[in-house]
Amino acid sequence: MKIYTKTGDKGQTSLIGGTRVAKYHLRIEAYGTVDELNSYIGLIMCQDIDSHHQQLLKEIQDRLFTVGASLAADPEKSKMKIPDLHDADITLLEKEMDDMNEVLPALKHFVLPGGNTVVSYCHIARCVCRRAERLTVALAENSFVDERVTVYLNRLSDYLFVLARKLNMDFGAEENIWIPRI
Amino acid sequence: MKIYTKTGDKGQTSLIGGTRVAKYHLRIEAYGTVDELNSYIGLIMCQDIDSHHQQLLKEIQDRLFTVGASLAADPEKSKMKIPDLHDADITLLEKEMDDMNEVLPALKHFVLPGGNTVVSYCHIARCVCRRAERLTVALAENSFVDERVTVYLNRLSDYLFVLARKLNMDFGAEENIWIPRI
Amino acid sequence: MKIYTKTGDKGQTSLIGGTRVAKYHLRIEAYGTVDELNSYIGLIMCQDIDSHHQQLLKEIQDRLFTVGASLAADPEKSKMKIPDLHDADITLLEKEMDDMNEVLPALKHFVLPGGNTVVSYCHIARCVCRRAERLTVALAENSFVDERVTVYLNRLSDYLFVLARKLNMDFGAEENIWIPRI
Ligand code: B12
Ligand code: B12
Ligand code: B12
Ligand SMILES: C[C@H]1O[C@@H](n2cnc3c(N)ncnc32)[C@H](O)[C@@H]1O
Ligand SMILES: C[C@H]1O[C@@H](n2cnc3c(N)ncnc32)[C@H](O)[C@@H]1O
Ligand SMILES: C[C@H]1O[C@@H](n2cnc3c(N)ncnc32)[C@H](O)[C@@H]1O
Ligand SMILES: [Mg+2]
Ligand SMILES: [Mg+2]
Ligand SMILES: [Mg+2]
Repeated sequence: MKIYTKTGDKGQTSLIGGTRVAKYHLRIEAYGTVDELNSYIGLIMCQDIDSHHQQLLKEIQDRLFTVGASLAADPEKSKMKIPDLHDADITLLEKEMDDMNEVLPALKHFVLPGGNTVVSYCHIARCVCRRAERLTVALAENSFVDERVTVYLNRLSDYLFVLARKLNMDFGAEENIWIPRI
Repeated sequence: MKIYTKTGDKGQTSLIGGTRVAKYHLRIEAYGTVDELNSYIGLIMCQDIDSHHQQLLKEIQDRLFTVGASLAADPEKSKMKIPDLHDADITLLEKEMDDMNEVLPALKHFVLPGGNTVVSYCHIARCVCRRAERLTVALAENSFVDERVTVYLNRLSDYLFVLARKLNMDFGAEENIWIPRI
Repeated sequence: MKIYTKTGDKGQTSLIGGTRVAKYHLRIEAYGTVDELNSYIGLIMCQDIDSHHQQLLKEIQDRLFTVGASLAADPEKSKMKIPDLHDADITLLEKEMDDMNEVLPALKHFVLPGGNTVVSYCHIARCVCRRAERLTVALAENSFVDERVTVYLNRLSDYLFVLARKLNMDFGAEENIWIPRI
């Protein structure tokens, strides 16, 4: 089967459940941005980092598809069984942060993003995650969104921040902080 | 001549044809995002990939400037000769996909983005392309947009997906698929 | 202290000054996008480029946090001393562009983004900067924004363009221009 179906050439597309909506519908914006985030997770994952982190990032990719399916399902119509986020998916991120924080110096200032390439990718992914969160919160204002989805994205951007710091430390790069100019 | 003209310091800018519009006008959002996409194409192009793909990506960059000029022209006022997209630009992408698909295994699941750096860049570019498509479709709702522009962007994101798979195969990386958790 | 405070789990957050706003508020979109831009600056900075450029990029990162603080302060309520942008921050970028332009060939056409990896990153950052500018201009329409913030972002995207050209030249890569197809 061809990948290009041409069914979206007129600017509309289908939610799970079949409803046709414009491609600029907030629901599409939201899961389209989760897709963008997922691509950045893939970029981080294939750099030369600890396999423990790679394993977790792969699990996060799986969860982001779960998020995508949840966001793509028409809340009014879909009778399909959609995979669900669990509370354990959120606490897993929290546990990971707690573990990494144990070895990281306490922070009282903002960190200047950077250090090396993969650390920078984490910071970019963190910001794309927050962009996805903003769109998802906006969507939740007018339409049903599983509450775990916004919580998951909120926690994930914090995880990516801590991961950036941890990788920076592992690579022995300096951590530069922001000291406001008076 | 200096690159910085300061003419946009107050937040307005000119379309082709001279009309002044706010920088957050949907038309500017649309071609600004095509510009972002074009930068990602440049990033993919300068990685170590087959020269056939590089050549095509260079042609795509040219077409995206054509798309940019088309979007930047005030439909009411511009009397300037703007370069046009042709049907052949779209069928070229389709032919490329057909060729690549011949050697790729059939797909029945989503692919976890990643594999290696350039493959990941393709996935990111694919998502930026879809973001540009969404803005262009939104613009077309209220204002004239050449229909070929939205079709081209729709086809281009599919091309970038197939290119990601093809490069992944060429580099001998594993293709991980998404199996929904129940 | 834990990085994740969970205070934003319901989709709201606090400006400097304490006012609670939705995370999709234009003010948050604006500084969230400046944060994304700052991450790209970090990515460019940690590539193998001249230390003069690295030093300037580090200063730009500092200024972007200043921009962030300025945008994050509730204009009605915040009594906090927020660090300010100075006119000199803007003229510094202009001087840098003038210096680089002296050694660069004059330009009469658009440049196809690309050349090598770091040059491509500059083009992407340039486009993210313009995205941040669009959001900031939109915000300024309904709410107070320090005028220097939009001017700074406008100048910064031009600086990133000239930097892209300069690095391209330093690395000896070809500069491809866009010749419109009739
Ligand atoms: C939501 C959605 C997305 C979302 C989110 C998915 C998520 N869960 O996070 C995002 C934005 C990521 C997405 C991206 C793409 N999608 Co999509 N997507 C859908 C949609 C609307 C629902 C899929 C879903 O999640 N279902 C819920 C899950 C739990 O149940 P499911 O339906 O059994 O899902 C399975 C799922 C898991 O087993 O994989 C499936 N699948 C079966 N055959 C194929 C073939 C292909 C090529 C793909 C990619 C998937 C696929 C199948 O959909 C369907 C259309 C529809 N209404 O069903 C299109 C659909 C599956 N997508 C399609 C395409 C082409 C793509 C993209 C290649 C587009 C692009 N150029 O970027 C990418 C591929 C991304 C990737 N990494 O593989 C096509 C596939 C056409 C084909 N040849 O079979 C469909 C059918 C839409 C269409 N054009 O008609 N998509
Ligand atoms: C639309 C547009 C864009 C769009 C889309 C372009 C496209 N076709 O896809 C995008 C968003 C990509 C863009 C980006 C930039 N642009 Co512009 N753009 C325009 C605009 C409005 C129309 C250009 C166009 O496409 N015309 C249609 C084509 C078919 O006809 P044309 O006019 O003959 O086009 C030629 C074109 C091809 O031959 O190259 C030209 N050109 C002539 N001299 C120069 C000098 C420079 C520095 C550049 C970049 C181009 C350029 C010239 O415009 C003009 C202003 C205007 N109203 O004309 C500004 C303009 C050309 N842009 C300008 C600038 C500064 C830029 C950026 C450097 C901004 C930035 N910081 O990112 C980048 C450069 C990107 C690159 N890769 O080279 C300036 C150039 C100032 C100067 N010193 O000459 C102009 C004049 C606007 C202004 N400030 O007054 N731009
Ligand atoms: C605006 C803002 C941002 C903006 C812009 C900042 C800018 N200036 O450009 C952006 C979007 C970049 C941002 C990002 C983040 N932020 Co913030 N941010 C704020 C906010 C609203 C104001 C900060 C500010 O600029 N103040 C103005 C400056 C001049 O004065 P100041 O208040 O003394 O600022 C200092 C500043 C400079 O010295 O560093 C501070 N600081 C003190 N302790 C800590 C601890 C941490 C972990 C951090 C990151 C900073 C920090 C402290 O805020 C505060 C909450 C609030 N209402 O105060 C949260 C806050 C500081 N942020 C927080 C967090 C968690 C983050 C992120 C990690 C979120 C994420 N997952 O991406 C990142 C970190 C980015 C980085 N590079 O370090 C938390 C810190 C929680 C904690 N454990 O202490 C706060 C307290 C919000 C909250 N959840 O309650 N943030
Ligand atoms: C660290 C600071 O970032 C802001 N904040 C919280 N969530 C988001 C988001 N999704 N995008 C951008 N900014 C956000 C809040 O102001 C918080 O205090
Ligand atoms: C693969 C799925 O992606 C969605 N889709 C189609 N076009 C876009 C776009 N520009 N941006 C985000 N999502 C899109 C549709 O739901 C389609 O079925
Ligand atoms: C070079 C051209 O880019 C457009 N332009 C000016 N500012 C922005 C921005 N922030 N984002 C996108 N496009 C912009 C104008 O049309 C200008 O002429
Ligand atoms: Mg948060
Ligand atoms: Mg499509
Ligand atoms: Mg400008």
